[in-house]
Amino acid sequence: MKVAVVGTGFVGAACAYAMTLRGSCREIVLVDKNHERAAAEANDILHATPVSHAIKIRAGGFDDITGASVVVLAAGVNQAPGETRLALLARNAAIFREIVPQVMRYAPEAVLIVATNPVDIMTALTENLAGKAARVFGTGTTLDTARFRALLGEHAGVDARHVHGYVVGEHGDSEVLAWSIVTVAGMDYKEFCRSRRIEFDATTIARIDDEVRHAAYKIIAGKGATAFGIGAVIARLVETVLRKERAIHTVSAHSPLHSVALSLPRLVGEAGVIDTIGVNLSPDENKKLETSATVLRDFLAKL
Amino acid sequence: MKVAVVGTGFVGAACAYAMTLRGSCREIVLVDKNHERAAAEANDILHATPVSHAIKIRAGGFDDITGASVVVLAAGVNQAPGETRLALLARNAAIFREIVPQVMRYAPEAVLIVATNPVDIMTALTENLAGKAARVFGTGTTLDTARFRALLGEHAGVDARHVHGYVVGEHGDSEVLAWSIVTVAGMDYKEFCRSRRIEFDATTIARIDDEVRHAAYKIIAGKGATAFGIGAVIARLVETVLRKERAIHTVSAHSPLHSVALSLPRLVGEAGVIDTIGVNLSPDENKKLETSATVLRDFLAKL
Amino acid sequence: MKVAVVGTGFVGAACAYAMTLRGSCREIVLVDKNHERAAAEANDILHATPVSHAIKIRAGGFDDITGASVVVLAAGVNQAPGETRLALLARNAAIFREIVPQVMRYAPEAVLIVATNPVDIMTALTENLAGKAARVFGTGTTLDTARFRALLGEHAGVDARHVHGYVVGEHGDSEVLAWSIVTVAGMDYKEFCRSRRIEFDATTIARIDDEVRHAAYKIIAGKGATAFGIGAVIARLVETVLRKERAIHTVSAHSPLHSVALSLPRLVGEAGVIDTIGVNLSPDENKKLETSATVLRDFLAKL
Amino acid sequence: MKVAVVGTGFVGAACAYAMTLRGSCREIVLVDKNHERAAAEANDILHATPVSHAIKIRAGGFDDITGASVVVLAAGVNQAPGETRLALLARNAAIFREIVPQVMRYAPEAVLIVATNPVDIMTALTENLAGKAARVFGTGTTLDTARFRALLGEHAGVDARHVHGYVVGEHGDSEVLAWSIVTVAGMDYKEFCRSRRIEFDATTIARIDDEVRHAAYKIIAGKGATAFGIGAVIARLVETVLRKERAIHTVSAHSPLHSVALSLPRLVGEAGVIDTIGVNLSPDENKKLETSATVLRDFLAKL
Repeated sequence: MKVAVVGTGFVGAACAYAMTLRGSCREIVLVDKNHERAAAEANDILHATPVSHAIKIRAGGFDDITGASVVVLAAGVNQAPGETRLALLARNAAIFREIVPQVMRYAPEAVLIVATNPVDIMTALTENLAGKAARVFGTGTTLDTARFRALLGEHAGVDARHVHGYVVGEHGDSEVLAWSIVTVAGMDYKEFCRSRRIEFDATTIARIDDEVRHAAYKIIAGKGATAFGIGAVIARLVETVLRKERAIHTVSAHSPLHSVALSLPRLVGEAGVIDTIGVNLSPDENKKLETSATVLRDFLAKL
Repeated sequence: MKVAVVGTGFVGAACAYAMTLRGSCREIVLVDKNHERAAAEANDILHATPVSHAIKIRAGGFDDITGASVVVLAAGVNQAPGETRLALLARNAAIFREIVPQVMRYAPEAVLIVATNPVDIMTALTENLAGKAARVFGTGTTLDTARFRALLGEHAGVDARHVHGYVVGEHGDSEVLAWSIVTVAGMDYKEFCRSRRIEFDATTIARIDDEVRHAAYKIIAGKGATAFGIGAVIARLVETVLRKERAIHTVSAHSPLHSVALSLPRLVGEAGVIDTIGVNLSPDENKKLETSATVLRDFLAKL
Repeated sequence: MKVAVVGTGFVGAACAYAMTLRGSCREIVLVDKNHERAAAEANDILHATPVSHAIKIRAGGFDDITGASVVVLAAGVNQAPGETRLALLARNAAIFREIVPQVMRYAPEAVLIVATNPVDIMTALTENLAGKAARVFGTGTTLDTARFRALLGEHAGVDARHVHGYVVGEHGDSEVLAWSIVTVAGMDYKEFCRSRRIEFDATTIARIDDEVRHAAYKIIAGKGATAFGIGAVIARLVETVLRKERAIHTVSAHSPLHSVALSLPRLVGEAGVIDTIGVNLSPDENKKLETSATVLRDFLAKL
Repeated sequence: MKVAVVGTGFVGAACAYAMTLRGSCREIVLVDKNHERAAAEANDILHATPVSHAIKIRAGGFDDITGASVVVLAAGVNQAPGETRLALLARNAAIFREIVPQVMRYAPEAVLIVATNPVDIMTALTENLAGKAARVFGTGTTLDTARFRALLGEHAGVDARHVHGYVVGEHGDSEVLAWSIVTVAGMDYKEFCRSRRIEFDATTIARIDDEVRHAAYKIIAGKGATAFGIGAVIARLVETVLRKERAIHTVSAHSPLHSVALSLPRLVGEAGVIDTIGVNLSPDENKKLETSATVLRDFLAKL
């Protein structure tokens, strides 16, 4: 099971490191325009293998991705401090117009996971560049959903893996936290908090919303980029595909209903996105989701 | 982190083996009236440690459980082919009257996990024998819940870890599958199946109900006892306690509402059961749960 | 990655359970003449998957092993208390004459791992039955080597994974503990003990020799069979093949030098045994190894 | 089990990420003069926990390290391209004179693992600053040993975990690859290669020596710093201490024989360094080791 990572900036490198420490696959190829950088990352990570898993990792060109089951597209420039995700687009679109045809040439059967921001736009672009038969999805709001669940769990005093909720729409400022369908142990979250005498009011909602929505900005302000969280999440998505797991993740893909790529809970497996789950959002959340889709459609139209 | 297993029949041994292969703890003590049996199990499992985790495992007496954070009570006779769980009681109650005082003497701070069947009655008995300050719960319907989710996931084509449902009440013939609160990705399970054009009718319900409710009988008919499933589930419960996880499991404990020990979704952590989650069952399910409680109360009354 | 286990007695079942808890593969098929037994084991282990790894496990016939990368042969009767390993032969040879052709028919590309005792004889028999092109090895002294290292580590106060030593020859009474090449951190073991002022004399050697050589007898006396140690070791061997690891294990295979199948340190990988490592035994150990080979040749001749 | 990481540059952050993905401990506190940086790293890594292990990670001050079992000292400036490890000293010594007394004040019982370069000098300095009772060791040549084994394994076609060899002396230009004691399966490495008809001559030695000795320089040239390899190795050392493993690692500590801190194979466990293993180097290697010690002593004298 071979995985290629195209683009070895902070995110691509963290993803390769996470896959090595988790034993997600057996072979990793790192591709970067700056080959020395890719080689240095491969070597640095290689030295972690004797204490973790027996994984082969090396730098290579596009021809070395032949046979990869998954290709992670993490190329592009990072979000600069203060920069909106959408502002990154122009620079990154040009890069993808070069990369995607090369990926399709050498690994036409691979599932493509888009990690470059603005991820919904880059996913739509990749879907266009790769052609109809391609199996493409973006990391979307997978990380936002993980953050949302982590904060919900912390607030309620329950392990995050037992709290179920989703962030949908754009991975970005217009994303929608689907509060109305959050559950713990089959109970509505609000009701759960009430039953355990845990405060849950507008202030709680506002605090968690802010922490989820603006988490990336704060991390970028402190360390210049986000890498470790998204790296681990990508490794998890790669495993879902390689292990044919049929797990549910809020990845980004074209939504016929919204005429644009955005995140919804989707069934993910060996073929990438297998199906989209139709969530029962509240009218208010549905309106926000439509707004989020409009933001993305408008932006895409400018391309 | 030390764990003691009292009773090294098939279940106790499988549990110790599972803890060793998972690295659930650092030290395991096996206690059995038949010391040679316990020593043989400890030795057999010890030989698995060079290829798994660095765990110390040995047989010992009750005085060797001093310092254990968790004590698994798996002593007792197995369910014979055709025998109901409740029929086991008389033989096992006598054994627990000997064992529990010894456990409380040497490991008064430990969390006690009761695995012996009929597990709800044995849990109630252990609660009485151990005293008010003790932290006791039974494995209850944890395994039934796991089976239920596995079958629901298989039917819907979704990884079981993304299907949420519970089996409550007695671990036995009167247990209640809480169909009304099963969800996938925030959706009602029935609705989820409909949206994916997966059949879901009375036949489906009857088949899954039968497979969950009678799984143990079939395994016992084929191999004489159940061991591996419950062994892994106990290892998971031990980890929940040791790692202070605050996870939700349908373990058995005294329910003031039902005046008897039975299984409900409960928040489990370092102190054993931290809280019980009040599930919103349908009227019909609530009635069945009350019936299940009555079965248990009647049986307990015969002691 | 699919693995078949033929024979679901204690060893085959423990091996399937270990593979499930370790996530060694993605799919397991259990084959047994007693199909109900295989089905019961598969079901019992299936219930461990929701708390461990997403592995498909089911009972099947020989036609269901098609596509398996590894087939574990664990069929046969267990060593009875007091019975020598060699005494089991007649009963088990007949079983293999039925099984091996079926395995070769449905999974001709698979690596065959023989676990049935007397394992060296059964390995030789399987090599004959499977034909020249087959890739066969036996578990041999893999478990004895693990036991040897565990005891050496315990005695020296060092983690067993840092003590290097081998048990070679027959898996049985005539096996040879290769004391002369035991090392810790590049030092001779004896010298290591001396430098740390740890006693190491004839009594130590005799005690460890006895515990390694007679471990199985003691476990059989206590619980009727060995299962958990060998089950975990087989899972480790399966992983070595599936992950193309090129690890060194003392597995049993035909040794041209000794004209019989016996255990020596061998390089194991995707093709089974890749090479045999020529160990520098002392003259005395070499003599004992030749004696061990003679025991096996004599026995094989009686077939 | 709580671990503190002081200094959240690339190495400290990679180490915290590796501990999170491996589940090395339950709680991590990150301390940095630049608190915003530490908070950003903690948040970035926190978002990896829902898909890995239930670990609490946060930024804090020195008072928050109270109760830590291990403190990793990774503070200091990175090795600049072209800069020798020894040239870093002056800048980093000043930092440690501030940090170490604070660590000893709040976590006097902790094992201290020094990761800052030049690591042998920083270890000696920390030993002095922390006082006689402190339990201090440096990462030393642990990573070099891992690199050495990885390359030896690759060359011989054997999994690195089965090749045993050490790099001793300074972690830096004067380090000594102990070729004379390299073994595979109880055989001398040279002999092993010969037996498998694998070339092994002066060119091989020179190539591997160069790749081990200059690995860091090449990675620094390509990506500006080394982080992932050393991060994973530190996580492994932390686990060795927390799990009381008694493993052998070439960590740096005061060597009475050499009157300076340098790396030798040492027995590491809950108390840090438990013992030093006296390796049988060749006369030439011993001479090189003495030279390496002299380099370090001379440098330390300049402080």
